[in-house]
Amino acid sequence: MNRSMKLATLLATASFGVLAAASAWSAESLQDVMKRRGLNEKDVLAAAKTYTPTGKRDEFLVFSSGGQSGQVLVYGIPSMRILKYIGVFTPEPWQGYGYDDESKRILDEGSSIDGRKVLFGDTHHPALSETDGDYDGQYLFINDKNFPRVAVIDLRDFETKQIVKNPILKSEHGGTFVSPNTDYIIEAAQYPAPLEDDFVPLEQFNEKYRGAVTYWRFNREKGRIEPENSFSIELPPYSQDLSDFGKGPSDGWSFTNSFCSERYVGGIERGRPPFEAGCSAKDTDFLHVVNWKKAEELFKAGKGKKINGHVVIDLATSVKEGVLFLIPEPKSPHGVDVTPDGKLITVSGKLDSHTTVYSFDKIMAQVKAGKFSGKDEYGVPIIDMASVVHKQVELGLGPLHTQYDAKPCVAYTSLYVDSMLAKWDYCEGKVLDKISIHYNIGHLMAMEGDTVHPKGKYVVALNKLAIDRFNPVGPLHPQNHQLIDASNDKMQLLYDMPLPLGEPHYAVAISADKLKPHIRYPHGTDSRTEEKHPASVRAGSERIERKPGKVEVFGSVIRSHITPEIIEVTEGDEVTVHLTNLERAQDETHGFAVSKHNVNLSLEPGKTASATFKANKAGVYPYYCTEFCSALHLEMEGYLLVQPANYKAAETAKAKEGVAYTQKDYDGRVKANVDTQKVIDSVVGYITSVNYKDFPPVVALVEDATDQLNFAKGAKEKSEDFAKKADWQNAMLWAEQWFQYQVKAADIGLRAKTYLEQHGAKKVQ
Amino acid sequence: MNRSMKLATLLATASFGVLAAASAWSAESLQDVMKRRGLNEKDVLAAAKTYTPTGKRDEFLVFSSGGQSGQVLVYGIPSMRILKYIGVFTPEPWQGYGYDDESKRILDEGSSIDGRKVLFGDTHHPALSETDGDYDGQYLFINDKNFPRVAVIDLRDFETKQIVKNPILKSEHGGTFVSPNTDYIIEAAQYPAPLEDDFVPLEQFNEKYRGAVTYWRFNREKGRIEPENSFSIELPPYSQDLSDFGKGPSDGWSFTNSFCSERYVGGIERGRPPFEAGCSAKDTDFLHVVNWKKAEELFKAGKGKKINGHVVIDLATSVKEGVLFLIPEPKSPHGVDVTPDGKLITVSGKLDSHTTVYSFDKIMAQVKAGKFSGKDEYGVPIIDMASVVHKQVELGLGPLHTQYDAKPCVAYTSLYVDSMLAKWDYCEGKVLDKISIHYNIGHLMAMEGDTVHPKGKYVVALNKLAIDRFNPVGPLHPQNHQLIDASNDKMQLLYDMPLPLGEPHYAVAISADKLKPHIRYPHGTDSRTEEKHPASVRAGSERIERKPGKVEVFGSVIRSHITPEIIEVTEGDEVTVHLTNLERAQDETHGFAVSKHNVNLSLEPGKTASATFKANKAGVYPYYCTEFCSALHLEMEGYLLVQPANYKAAETAKAKEGVAYTQKDYDGRVKANVDTQKVIDSVVGYITSVNYKDFPPVVALVEDATDQLNFAKGAKEKSEDFAKKADWQNAMLWAEQWFQYQVKAADIGLRAKTYLEQHGAKKVQ
Repeated sequence: MNRSMKLATLLATASFGVLAAASAWSAESLQDVMKRRGLNEKDVLAAAKTYTPTGKRDEFLVFSSGGQSGQVLVYGIPSMRILKYIGVFTPEPWQGYGYDDESKRILDEGSSIDGRKVLFGDTHHPALSETDGDYDGQYLFINDKNFPRVAVIDLRDFETKQIVKNPILKSEHGGTFVSPNTDYIIEAAQYPAPLEDDFVPLEQFNEKYRGAVTYWRFNREKGRIEPENSFSIELPPYSQDLSDFGKGPSDGWSFTNSFCSERYVGGIERGRPPFEAGCSAKDTDFLHVVNWKKAEELFKAGKGKKINGHVVIDLATSVKEGVLFLIPEPKSPHGVDVTPDGKLITVSGKLDSHTTVYSFDKIMAQVKAGKFSGKDEYGVPIIDMASVVHKQVELGLGPLHTQYDAKPCVAYTSLYVDSMLAKWDYCEGKVLDKISIHYNIGHLMAMEGDTVHPKGKYVVALNKLAIDRFNPVGPLHPQNHQLIDASNDKMQLLYDMPLPLGEPHYAVAISADKLKPHIRYPHGTDSRTEEKHPASVRAGSERIERKPGKVEVFGSVIRSHITPEIIEVTEGDEVTVHLTNLERAQDETHGFAVSKHNVNLSLEPGKTASATFKANKAGVYPYYCTEFCSALHLEMEGYLLVQPANYKAAETAKAKEGVAYTQKDYDGRVKANVDTQKVIDSVVGYITSVNYKDFPPVVALVEDATDQLNFAKGAKEKSEDFAKKADWQNAMLWAEQWFQYQVKAADIGLRAKTYLEQHGAKKVQ
Repeated sequence: MNRSMKLATLLATASFGVLAAASAWSAESLQDVMKRRGLNEKDVLAAAKTYTPTGKRDEFLVFSSGGQSGQVLVYGIPSMRILKYIGVFTPEPWQGYGYDDESKRILDEGSSIDGRKVLFGDTHHPALSETDGDYDGQYLFINDKNFPRVAVIDLRDFETKQIVKNPILKSEHGGTFVSPNTDYIIEAAQYPAPLEDDFVPLEQFNEKYRGAVTYWRFNREKGRIEPENSFSIELPPYSQDLSDFGKGPSDGWSFTNSFCSERYVGGIERGRPPFEAGCSAKDTDFLHVVNWKKAEELFKAGKGKKINGHVVIDLATSVKEGVLFLIPEPKSPHGVDVTPDGKLITVSGKLDSHTTVYSFDKIMAQVKAGKFSGKDEYGVPIIDMASVVHKQVELGLGPLHTQYDAKPCVAYTSLYVDSMLAKWDYCEGKVLDKISIHYNIGHLMAMEGDTVHPKGKYVVALNKLAIDRFNPVGPLHPQNHQLIDASNDKMQLLYDMPLPLGEPHYAVAISADKLKPHIRYPHGTDSRTEEKHPASVRAGSERIERKPGKVEVFGSVIRSHITPEIIEVTEGDEVTVHLTNLERAQDETHGFAVSKHNVNLSLEPGKTASATFKANKAGVYPYYCTEFCSALHLEMEGYLLVQPANYKAAETAKAKEGVAYTQKDYDGRVKANVDTQKVIDSVVGYITSVNYKDFPPVVALVEDATDQLNFAKGAKEKSEDFAKKADWQNAMLWAEQWFQYQVKAADIGLRAKTYLEQHGAKKVQ
């Protein structure tokens, strides 16, 4: 039966309710499964739209804020499977992040403040680097709301490379957002505070508390933010929220909205109405419109003042130079989102039912004409709202955040209070479709939906409450990201994805084919500096260096041993272990942990990483590989021996071996090895008889197997040398090691053979 | 068109390739989707078997080791969606774990050793509590390989309640395993080391290095391990690996296997063959057979010796009293797994191709007859292997671990080197089926597959390598858990699930209906002690207490404010903030973070948690709720004001309000509130006109809405009091707060109404 006939049979059986004879791979027809699991036709269609069979790839990758976990998470669309949590502001031992010396340097520097360490973050808004307003797949940025900071993640290895602390903000929320060529990254204040670090009483809130927007300069070649080339502009003490950069015609401008422009200070414990009452009383707040190109000029011209060593363009200068304007916007908005063509700006007042579309052209016309309806208390010109509105659309209750579709004029907006998502036309100002979500959507995310070329197809609702959507797991619930099919006029809910760690705020989705991450590092790479690690080693050059009070180990890891296997130090020594992973094979990561010490390294192929610790207590501490790497992973072990000060080895007889081997053992082992080699040779014979070079995964496996066979050769030679000296103990053990390398080579070779057979390899001449 | 007609149309359309007119919810037929996404019939069936529509529940919950992340993860079967990471050995801020005082007490005590703190774990083998050999859904236990420890997690709230440090082990691996009524939990050594903490040179490995198995006593009523009622038995310096408790006829016995019974010590840096060669040279290792009931008697009779304050039954006593026996087992085994009926024990030699089934009856016969083939170097009797083997079956290369099916005599065994999973009959000793996995399976997990009543249906392959299965995310790959349909004779691969954080080793799956977690805590609960928190408050009793150098805040959180909203302290003060979440609604968690401080609380409904920190730098520090909880979540804020020592408030005029409100503002607000109340009344009218009490989710919503309306009433009264005094500022602001409570009530009420309408509520009299 050919494939399409089988398909027809399967589905016909389901549709007419006739029980098919059990196929080889299932006793149930599709209809049986639907009945048993209570699925309807919509469900099956949604299943088919999201299910991703083994080995198949997702079309988009999502980089999501990890909320208070302090991390970033990566998942695939449409499968909604989480592929990785990336350690950013919180130590994470699986990745060695905050547990190896190299990452500690980044995390310690980025988490230290006034003698404290802040070892978590409240990540909010990730941003992908852009070239000409499109995602380029190179870098990811993410901010921390609690401790105003921005982190840089390199998408070649999905590792955090830099954390820069904001020198003037005490609180932020609206970051990160990138300019169309990633020259600058926005980080904006949230709760007003003095920009200096001094205490100022709340009675001076209006006079001395301030907001600000920081424009971080990004050096793309170095892949690092340059604090010395970055600046901020001072803002009134409104609570700034989200921002967006202009693009196309609006390039050079940025937009930051705000809530609590009432400048209300609560105090419910003193009988005053709480912040929530006083911060939501007025019908409008202010959209800040910033000419950042002009601000950059002022910065470069030295017209800023330094606060905590960082240049700030003050309010008076901004007003004088035409850098800053305000436009009323409906009640307590959340998102401000520039359209792909850069001509319009949407803002949703979360306590209003309208989304407002502003025209950049109209704003510029007012600015150029110098037509203002007034000034705020800080002298900032206010543009009349009505004069710059393109459309105002009633979308529903609690509109928050907007992203754009591939189709012109089509946008999606989240409705928090309604627990709905609206699809609408921002050119014409009309609602196209609405769909219920579960529950209380915050941000939403369309595919590349904040770029100049949105991709359409899907929208994800980042819901704040899950309530009853999943199996209960205690009072603390997962969040719920819901995948919605947006390829048709009517939206369709496809998938509920629980978020198991942290509360994501915003996420960005990129076409998966734009990402080209490394499979391995160049030999001996310090992944955090992206340079050759000075302590990296090649096989055979491992060594231990000793200075008074300090032991430095230059070691290596490879299937299945750590070199060295014994490290002797003296109580009180500072010990540094540098390890280089000598593997080249994909996914052959090794780990390194030392019993009862706070050390865990993640050593991906080619990486060199280090652990420094104090050997502060004499004793015996096994160490081992923490990534299951091979059949003999558990045997990948060693001993750290911390000897008491002034310890002298006793003049004991040489330790007795647990087992004494004889020539017979050696001969038996060698015979088995020779037989094993025959099997390997037959596998090699098969592989080289077909067009294996046409299959890149097999080429990689052959490379790895060749490595292992070379190691086997080395062990075989050692074994034979000892045999010549009739040292059967060592001859037998090296013969065993020779066999272990053979086993690894055979394992890899068999996998290559299976792959070739299953993928239709053909005989070559 | 009725439902079954629609179904028929959908599938018939697909099967005959006729394009249907677009339904309201999709423009594509199932066949279109299959073609577009490259799915075959098998894929669609697998999709239907795993896809779980919104709001539907999984049949089984999995508790998986989180490997080097130090955590436990929870996912559902068949959807393979991760529901939660539980903080265990590593601080995790989303949960406040290691960031609030209550959890810090557990983590600090459990992570401190010799003046160091070990803030990660290498979790390996979770175990669920059992009653009569079946999972009871009460507790989960998990061990740390690196720092020998065991943690207790309460499944009422999925929180870690206790960590006990092993007083004698320097390394472990084989834990946790529970006795059939959870009286004891096994934790076994891995790499041999002196049981005392002193340094002993490796030259004395055979004489002074040892293994051990610890039997931790669990007090089920307290939900805690009792170290004082726990004991260990000393074992020879073989590398002990996994264990299992006997059950039924073998209850009272336990089994622990081992590798490297060669007692080989490597040293590749000294020219010696590495551990992997010397530890895999012999054809057999030893299964340790322990009469733990007898050992318990000896412990209670005081026949143990104390090492580091912990009672150890030494080797001589075990031998003399018939506690310990050895049986040869094939080369470097991993799993030892007792059959559901307790009669047989399977062991797989990972460097052999056989799995060996031992007969407990035969073992007992040899023990009772005193028939031994010899003794090891430590005097432990060795039972002849052939005399106690029930069957030996050639399953494939690299067999590791076995679990059991619901069908009698059926087992599943992982084959690491072959990258396959074998289904076989352990009574008859024959292979039934094999399936390829991707790649290099370590453990496997069947549903309740290590209990006396396995549930069958599914098996999960816990693969060690993913290689090419998923979109690339850098050199560090996720792991791959593959779900396999085991309900038929032929196994079918259903789903590839990437593991995004940590490398799981073992996992256990429990029928979801056995778990009954809390939705909320009783008011004011310290979740870590599970008792009333002494610092919990009711609404209105919040307060700040001051002593020299110490400020203690007894506060509360509720949608959408923190009480207090202003906390004034003096530089140098130690500040403790206790917060009680006053909510009762499901999923209404609030958080609490203080700008630039290492504080994050997760306050689920009813919980009280605390943060203590030093206010070591004068300044202004906003604090806020870190869990998006309501439309006014961003306004849930406050200020920590750290005043310089000897600060005296200046005699400034009263701070100017940002906005001054008038009677007109007040009247307008009141009018809007009265209108809002009419909407609420109409919703209430609808709800009470139908049988809403038949819908528990609606009953919960009504309870929550009633709470909010009571708060609204309180704010309304305050507003009216101020209006009487013509204090329009406060009258307006309290009227605004009255409105905010109305909005919350309306939001909840509308959700209840929608639920009732969608679930067929009926009019009542």
